[in-house]
Amino acid sequence: MAAQPLTPQPEDRFSFGLWTVGWRAVDPFGEATRPRLDPVEAVHRLAGLGAWGVTFHDDDLIPFGADGAEREGHIARFREALDETGLVVPMATTNLFTHPVFKGGALTSADRDIRRYALRKVMRNMDLAAELGARTYVLWGGREGAETDAGIDVPAALDRYAEGVDTLAQYVLDQGYDLRLALEPKPNEPRGDILLPTIGHALAFISRLQHHEMVGVNPEVGHEQMAGLNYVHGIGQALWSGKLFHLDLNGQRGPRYDQDFVFGHGDLLSAFFTVDLLEHGGYEGPRHFDYKPLRTEDADGVWASAEANMRSYLILRERARAYRADPEVREALRAARVDQLAVPTLEPGETPARLAADPGAFEEFDVDAAAARGGGFVRLSQLALEHLTGAR
Amino acid sequence: MAAQPLTPQPEDRFSFGLWTVGWRAVDPFGEATRPRLDPVEAVHRLAGLGAWGVTFHDDDLIPFGADGAEREGHIARFREALDETGLVVPMATTNLFTHPVFKGGALTSADRDIRRYALRKVMRNMDLAAELGARTYVLWGGREGAETDAGIDVPAALDRYAEGVDTLAQYVLDQGYDLRLALEPKPNEPRGDILLPTIGHALAFISRLQHHEMVGVNPEVGHEQMAGLNYVHGIGQALWSGKLFHLDLNGQRGPRYDQDFVFGHGDLLSAFFTVDLLEHGGYEGPRHFDYKPLRTEDADGVWASAEANMRSYLILRERARAYRADPEVREALRAARVDQLAVPTLEPGETPARLAADPGAFEEFDVDAAAARGGGFVRLSQLALEHLTGAR
Amino acid sequence: MAAQPLTPQPEDRFSFGLWTVGWRAVDPFGEATRPRLDPVEAVHRLAGLGAWGVTFHDDDLIPFGADGAEREGHIARFREALDETGLVVPMATTNLFTHPVFKGGALTSADRDIRRYALRKVMRNMDLAAELGARTYVLWGGREGAETDAGIDVPAALDRYAEGVDTLAQYVLDQGYDLRLALEPKPNEPRGDILLPTIGHALAFISRLQHHEMVGVNPEVGHEQMAGLNYVHGIGQALWSGKLFHLDLNGQRGPRYDQDFVFGHGDLLSAFFTVDLLEHGGYEGPRHFDYKPLRTEDADGVWASAEANMRSYLILRERARAYRADPEVREALRAARVDQLAVPTLEPGETPARLAADPGAFEEFDVDAAAARGGGFVRLSQLALEHLTGAR
Amino acid sequence: MAAQPLTPQPEDRFSFGLWTVGWRAVDPFGEATRPRLDPVEAVHRLAGLGAWGVTFHDDDLIPFGADGAEREGHIARFREALDETGLVVPMATTNLFTHPVFKGGALTSADRDIRRYALRKVMRNMDLAAELGARTYVLWGGREGAETDAGIDVPAALDRYAEGVDTLAQYVLDQGYDLRLALEPKPNEPRGDILLPTIGHALAFISRLQHHEMVGVNPEVGHEQMAGLNYVHGIGQALWSGKLFHLDLNGQRGPRYDQDFVFGHGDLLSAFFTVDLLEHGGYEGPRHFDYKPLRTEDADGVWASAEANMRSYLILRERARAYRADPEVREALRAARVDQLAVPTLEPGETPARLAADPGAFEEFDVDAAAARGGGFVRLSQLALEHLTGAR
Repeated sequence: MAAQPLTPQPEDRFSFGLWTVGWRAVDPFGEATRPRLDPVEAVHRLAGLGAWGVTFHDDDLIPFGADGAEREGHIARFREALDETGLVVPMATTNLFTHPVFKGGALTSADRDIRRYALRKVMRNMDLAAELGARTYVLWGGREGAETDAGIDVPAALDRYAEGVDTLAQYVLDQGYDLRLALEPKPNEPRGDILLPTIGHALAFISRLQHHEMVGVNPEVGHEQMAGLNYVHGIGQALWSGKLFHLDLNGQRGPRYDQDFVFGHGDLLSAFFTVDLLEHGGYEGPRHFDYKPLRTEDADGVWASAEANMRSYLILRERARAYRADPEVREALRAARVDQLAVPTLEPGETPARLAADPGAFEEFDVDAAAARGGGFVRLSQLALEHLTGAR
Repeated sequence: MAAQPLTPQPEDRFSFGLWTVGWRAVDPFGEATRPRLDPVEAVHRLAGLGAWGVTFHDDDLIPFGADGAEREGHIARFREALDETGLVVPMATTNLFTHPVFKGGALTSADRDIRRYALRKVMRNMDLAAELGARTYVLWGGREGAETDAGIDVPAALDRYAEGVDTLAQYVLDQGYDLRLALEPKPNEPRGDILLPTIGHALAFISRLQHHEMVGVNPEVGHEQMAGLNYVHGIGQALWSGKLFHLDLNGQRGPRYDQDFVFGHGDLLSAFFTVDLLEHGGYEGPRHFDYKPLRTEDADGVWASAEANMRSYLILRERARAYRADPEVREALRAARVDQLAVPTLEPGETPARLAADPGAFEEFDVDAAAARGGGFVRLSQLALEHLTGAR
Repeated sequence: MAAQPLTPQPEDRFSFGLWTVGWRAVDPFGEATRPRLDPVEAVHRLAGLGAWGVTFHDDDLIPFGADGAEREGHIARFREALDETGLVVPMATTNLFTHPVFKGGALTSADRDIRRYALRKVMRNMDLAAELGARTYVLWGGREGAETDAGIDVPAALDRYAEGVDTLAQYVLDQGYDLRLALEPKPNEPRGDILLPTIGHALAFISRLQHHEMVGVNPEVGHEQMAGLNYVHGIGQALWSGKLFHLDLNGQRGPRYDQDFVFGHGDLLSAFFTVDLLEHGGYEGPRHFDYKPLRTEDADGVWASAEANMRSYLILRERARAYRADPEVREALRAARVDQLAVPTLEPGETPARLAADPGAFEEFDVDAAAARGGGFVRLSQLALEHLTGAR
Repeated sequence: MAAQPLTPQPEDRFSFGLWTVGWRAVDPFGEATRPRLDPVEAVHRLAGLGAWGVTFHDDDLIPFGADGAEREGHIARFREALDETGLVVPMATTNLFTHPVFKGGALTSADRDIRRYALRKVMRNMDLAAELGARTYVLWGGREGAETDAGIDVPAALDRYAEGVDTLAQYVLDQGYDLRLALEPKPNEPRGDILLPTIGHALAFISRLQHHEMVGVNPEVGHEQMAGLNYVHGIGQALWSGKLFHLDLNGQRGPRYDQDFVFGHGDLLSAFFTVDLLEHGGYEGPRHFDYKPLRTEDADGVWASAEANMRSYLILRERARAYRADPEVREALRAARVDQLAVPTLEPGETPARLAADPGAFEEFDVDAAAARGGGFVRLSQLALEHLTGAR
């Protein structure tokens, strides 16, 4: 048994955005409640808590509008902090939403010059991301959308979106960067409706890209839950599509504003099954937290919240492992025939015509007997709850 | 000017499911309030109201468990009614949800024999659909899903789902039927979470099918709105993907139970923009209503509600045409630069490297001037409202 | 330490509706998957699982339309089962929603004769409730509402609603029954919008009744969560108003159809704080489960689900007790100054004028210093999560 | 017929908050897109558009922290603008949410000194409100709430809330101001859960105040719709309670972030019935718009959006009047027996005992005949839609 099972280790691959612990807590109705956090301090504090990686938007690290020398200074200091702490940069992304120039969109702005500017802003930060060793480049199109259907031609906007993403993918190829792109869906906020609102819409969009093989998704717990969708099912479909390149863990309490709570501090049962799927479903990327420390908290609360994300994950991982190892759970899964989903419906080589000629499949099938079989799902559900609560 | 602009004509291509006007109004808390409606009567009444087509689930027409002779009798009477009225059958679908045998799913049931039975049930009704001249075959997997994440292995379930849909597509090909398949997404109800919960998830799923070219979507207004998603954006993405094969028009008031109100009796602004997109965005399929007459209504209310769907559509079509024709709207669209989305972001032949070398795109770009440009969206939004309300 | 801490005992006061374990699993898209359950069997099985009470709608016990002799027979058998098992009947209620006569409402039907009939149906079952020793009579007005704002005059409907409830209260007084009335709010389903949609609306309505002192609320977990509302806050306000007469525990996953999951199988963090409030906030009524066994389950699953409700409650009770007893939690609560809410804002006897004259309160108040204090809420939140998951 | 029916007139009593047209468009992901608007300019522009009144938070008019002289200067300029334009100040309110000091609440802050400070801040602005002739003083407790149930004791917080509101009511009485208080409910945002989340909760809270007769509600369209609740039903209950003191008109598209769209640019059918109820249901207060001009808009868009609110209202008023005047609507209302809700259920003087003895009410009541009557609601619903769209 591990001595300190809830102490994060680098091999846990926990990463945080600079913008998370650095959030100054401006909200739609309130001013900042915390001072600016130096990215260098963030790196040191996160490393001290056991994190493995740090991620950033360009403007998190280098204030918008900084000149070349300032930019180099910020990068140098950040790189030094990384070297001192051993923290890695697994992912980077671009801020295409804060500055007013993006108020009507970035890659899908109605203004072509803004679209070109946005592409350049991404490309510049891709250079830095590659230089810092990132392997994933996230694109969250938070301003790509509309408040009124009168103001957007969706097919045309998707054409521009695809053109933009393919241009960026080509740029990565041209530069020889070892980067994959990951699109982050969100249904709304800050726009009334955002393009690519869910994991599904993003996967469908990607399937039509020229460089589709380089592009996957970066789904965020809360973003799917804002649409009332099941995050575990969503990342399940992304895994099935070979497209779960990265993800954002946090907490949300259903359809409302984007809450960005600590992971686990939202729908806890879903968080349990999320960890279960990540640990047992073949995902190998970082465990990245994209959350906001509550606006009520001071600096101590910020660091307590960073730690809380990792502790929650570790608790849930322990619970999920015990759940999977429990012979009673295994028996209940068999009783519920969950494993039978892996068995093809057709016999090897069976054609539709042969199925159509199988009287056992239809004419002689005892529908009522089949209907009478119990699902066994409530038992499974309760076993999960009891493992999650440590009652088993 | 048309004498009776709100009188539906066959060329309007309005169609209704037998299950809509025939809904007996059983709900989770109440028994049927209306007697069974004979499909033959439904055909005659719908034709009398100006509808063009009628659609059906197998069990709408032929009660579950009917023997061969009964089945033929039901089909013969229905065909006779079609012949008498001239109504066509543009679409058909399968009931894979009412009978208890499907309580745990049909194409993704954990029971392989139920999956095989479900495929056969679909195939049998595809035979009838083809015989009656349908061109679209809808698959709504309302029971494919789960109430607890413990009870389903989503990637395995999607494997079975894909196997099922591809088997059915192969059957259509083998039989030489002129049918396309259309998947109907829904987020939840009757299952806690349904697989392929939104248009996006369905499109993404289709992109990975072997017979993807034969499979599109059949999005329902209310189903997307149950997830708080924008229906107009959703069908916009389906059109962009070349996959809007068919659709279901009705009304819903946001995330709650599936209401299936009359088209227009939900989010009216969205209904206006839906009609605008259908009429001006390249959709050529039927205008199919999938709604439920309120449980409070008697037979008169049923037929009033059928008529109301068509009248609402026709009113909105008239309003959308006037909106598109209004010179002030055109000017406002130009001022909002909505047309600029059709202009590629890159010059013809421009490479990422050339974009990266264009100082006008970034180094010399006047960000603040660009940021200061007004969007002009509120004006457009109000013009739409004023057209919709007949105030212009 | 208790030998079998998760074995329900009568003193836990767990009760179930006959309609819960007896739900035949008809849903909007599917037929019954389970046979009728004899109420006598339900009583014996529930008693065997450790339940303390059983509740019922009139029609659960006595099929609608039964004649006098049949009625007496059903009652006699039921009473015998109660006697044999020792189960009590703490609450009863009326089915004013299943029969088509109530399709447009019961106490607020537009048809006065239906309103009168509904009152009589309640009165008849109140007689039985009193006879069986019930102390609470629940009124759920599931059909009081509308699908269109055109079809209801809300103030007039509330007049009728108040007249109805006051008439019933008067009936209780006239008969000398020891019954209190409890209104059960719900936002929608089966009506598009239901009158008294939340705990708040019900409390406000009650405050205007003639017999307001006899009427409280019976809030259901899932009903509040269907509106995205916080159940713990809701019952907190009901307790504050002295009106939490009874409650319905179950599970729900946010705004969607009424799911009636097992308690705990929805928002688990909220379930934890619900139990914490019930155990430590002064509620003394039954712990009543109003849930539906999943439609996928057979009889074994039904009884497993009944047991699961009680086990979940007992686990959460144990966790809540440990949470309240933990010195670190106590310290964190003090640090977050939660106890300070109990301290009046004004000094004893302080008038507004004296407050207005206190420079320390405003003119000399150090706003920035006060603003800098950290809330300490994330720490509390994580302590709760760790207790809930048994990690402490 | 009116020459310019869509030109607002002072007698329409349209009012706007200074914070609406003055919103600088900071959102959770973006910086301000518009410069500060001088309140004096706002007054002149609003007057020029035909508005009748202007409302304000203290900090809208007088920047937080301004000294006494600055304060007087701001007030003097504002008063001059009012005098020049004839605009009135029907309502004022307090900003208890922007400054970090209120991050954990104002009247229910865990810090008693912050609660005292908040009361003083309200009292100071009440003085100004009274001086400027306001008749309603709104209290929106946007920061009264919590993100975790661990961090709040709801009954204690409601005690403090009640103490605060009663103290303020007493202050008004002591000062002899002609002001009524109006509480504004909201379910969430900026807090995870806000106390008094809906109209119902606020009405219930008010009923327990010492000065309940002086306190009513100020319901906002979007706030109720964020909980999926029916705004028309909500204000209907407020009117029934005699508590609809003031209201906030705007637009929202269901449960998501607080959108504050132009009135009508959300749920248009609900907006129609809202105007219908306000015009025909006995409300006599201002028509107050509490919206935010889209962040995409420049100054022209701001003023276009202000105008749009009023035009939408006037269009809907015209449509509602025509609807009420249409003989077919009147006939349909009678057929749907909507007027029958005004008829008491009991005969004059009828006791419960006499009702119990009326065989016509129960024993001889023809349930099936009553059940067979059609509701006639779909016809009404469609008539409303056709009036709303100007098709009648």
